[in-house]
Amino acid sequence: MLSIEKYQEEFVAYLEKYSTLKEPNNLYAPIQYILGLGGKRLRPVLTLMTAEIFNSDYRKALDAALSIEVFHNFSLVHDDIMDDAPLRRGQETVHEKWDINTGILSGDAMLIMAYQLFENYETNTFQSLAKLFSKTAIEVCEGQQYDVDFETRNDVTVLEYLKMIEYKTAVLVGAAMKMGAIVANASNNDQNSIYEFGRNLGIAFQLQDDYLDAFGDPKTFGKQVGGDIIENKKTYLYLKALEFSNEENQLKLKELFNSVLEDNDAKISTVKQIFNGSGASGATQEEIKNYTNKAFMVLESLDISEEKKTLLRDFGNALMNRNV
Amino acid sequence: MLSIEKYQEEFVAYLEKYSTLKEPNNLYAPIQYILGLGGKRLRPVLTLMTAEIFNSDYRKALDAALSIEVFHNFSLVHDDIMDDAPLRRGQETVHEKWDINTGILSGDAMLIMAYQLFENYETNTFQSLAKLFSKTAIEVCEGQQYDVDFETRNDVTVLEYLKMIEYKTAVLVGAAMKMGAIVANASNNDQNSIYEFGRNLGIAFQLQDDYLDAFGDPKTFGKQVGGDIIENKKTYLYLKALEFSNEENQLKLKELFNSVLEDNDAKISTVKQIFNGSGASGATQEEIKNYTNKAFMVLESLDISEEKKTLLRDFGNALMNRNV
Repeated sequence: MLSIEKYQEEFVAYLEKYSTLKEPNNLYAPIQYILGLGGKRLRPVLTLMTAEIFNSDYRKALDAALSIEVFHNFSLVHDDIMDDAPLRRGQETVHEKWDINTGILSGDAMLIMAYQLFENYETNTFQSLAKLFSKTAIEVCEGQQYDVDFETRNDVTVLEYLKMIEYKTAVLVGAAMKMGAIVANASNNDQNSIYEFGRNLGIAFQLQDDYLDAFGDPKTFGKQVGGDIIENKKTYLYLKALEFSNEENQLKLKELFNSVLEDNDAKISTVKQIFNGSGASGATQEEIKNYTNKAFMVLESLDISEEKKTLLRDFGNALMNRNV
Repeated sequence: MLSIEKYQEEFVAYLEKYSTLKEPNNLYAPIQYILGLGGKRLRPVLTLMTAEIFNSDYRKALDAALSIEVFHNFSLVHDDIMDDAPLRRGQETVHEKWDINTGILSGDAMLIMAYQLFENYETNTFQSLAKLFSKTAIEVCEGQQYDVDFETRNDVTVLEYLKMIEYKTAVLVGAAMKMGAIVANASNNDQNSIYEFGRNLGIAFQLQDDYLDAFGDPKTFGKQVGGDIIENKKTYLYLKALEFSNEENQLKLKELFNSVLEDNDAKISTVKQIFNGSGASGATQEEIKNYTNKAFMVLESLDISEEKKTLLRDFGNALMNRNV
């Protein structure tokens, strides 16, 4: 097994070979641009790592890993249009650097290119990968739609929120790992278990994201701390705070999350006080641990060495103890 | 073999069963809406017809036909956003009836759903269909990008224009027919020939569209006659008129195609005079015949009965003599 850093390196080298400029330039330049913006390459690394965990050469999984990364970037390009986001990884978003039409069309092409990356696998593997990919991609779209719908709803439940982040974020983590298992010809049982491991870890990962958005260290957290509060995002923290608060604080919270302010410092500080005072912060950390433990429990049923299980556990713990 | 009308009927019945409302409603309602807007259903009918031509039950090809139609409608939804088009088949476009974000996301979902429709076929057929689909879909995106690029270029050649309409329109007609052949397990030679038949007919079809846009009968032509002239579209007619005209008319044409006017009647009438006087109209009709004949010549190499060849020829002739 390689180290995470080594997988990242190998993946980025493969990505750079893939991402060459083709005609028409205006279609492919934005694709090269977004794929080159960097990031942790978490999902493709998981695909490579999983392939090796199930005793395949990780190189066999490079195209599947690339497909996951191309799809992930497709969703970023289209989501950034929908969110009207000016920046992605500190650089201009595609629709800012070019225009909305370019973002739409280049995104479409990436979605198709993600499927094409399965064509190097033999027929049965091709079908398994493409079917899993389609199922996952549709769920990501549904998750994005729920996220949009929730913006204008005031009755979102915690369960609905968990389903939304599962679809929007977690299923792709599960699929990234399952693809590694498919390429490695792992048993159906192992394929499904590693998917469950990834899915649960993905939910924990997103809840951690919500938590860090409010309570992360401004020095190490990549994004603006309090961004979700400024944008009135009804995250797990918010929903739990509503559930746990007295009427007075509920009202205050609802009022604050209906306001768009010039200066957000007071808002952020009040909201964080309620998050902490109500017990919502603690409940969120509890839920993160819950989902991480669910993921770890799935590991038990896997037909792999203790050493490899420890590796997956370490990876999960590293994700959950991150501050970026 | 059934009649065109019967294939249409059977297809629409199958489409209606498929297009049910799922959650989240805001994602799937626009999909049901655009799929229900009607149209000639030309492409899926070709898939069904081709399956029968190669001795399969057309019912086996219904999912492939549906995939082609879902993809076609995906491209309409995204193109309509890019063109800022208010109407489609006389009804509001998706992004007008909902909003741009809904149009983007519902379109994305349709592209994925088109792939999922291949999942009912056995592994080898699945792979053949999905590979052909990806290749075609990427070409359609490239064609759309060329079309966008040509709007701001003044040096587009006839060859470039032909490549653009081949990618944007014709390859999907070829693919629609080849999918019917794949489902019917036709030989590789027959699969490729029927693709070429469709591709050439598709180019002829688009050139005919260009021609009818200027010279169609306002009573029977569905769209506004002269629409391309109003929008300064550099169609085959325009490029040929430039090629054939003297300097004076070249200048006049270029000037007119740089103007955005309130009243377009005089512009349309002048441009049509130049199209006719320069010989561009004749050359376009000549080229339509050329591509139709190319398509018919491919038929010779097909391993099917004379009766079926006649059917395909009749279909081609009907398309070329249409006035809608």
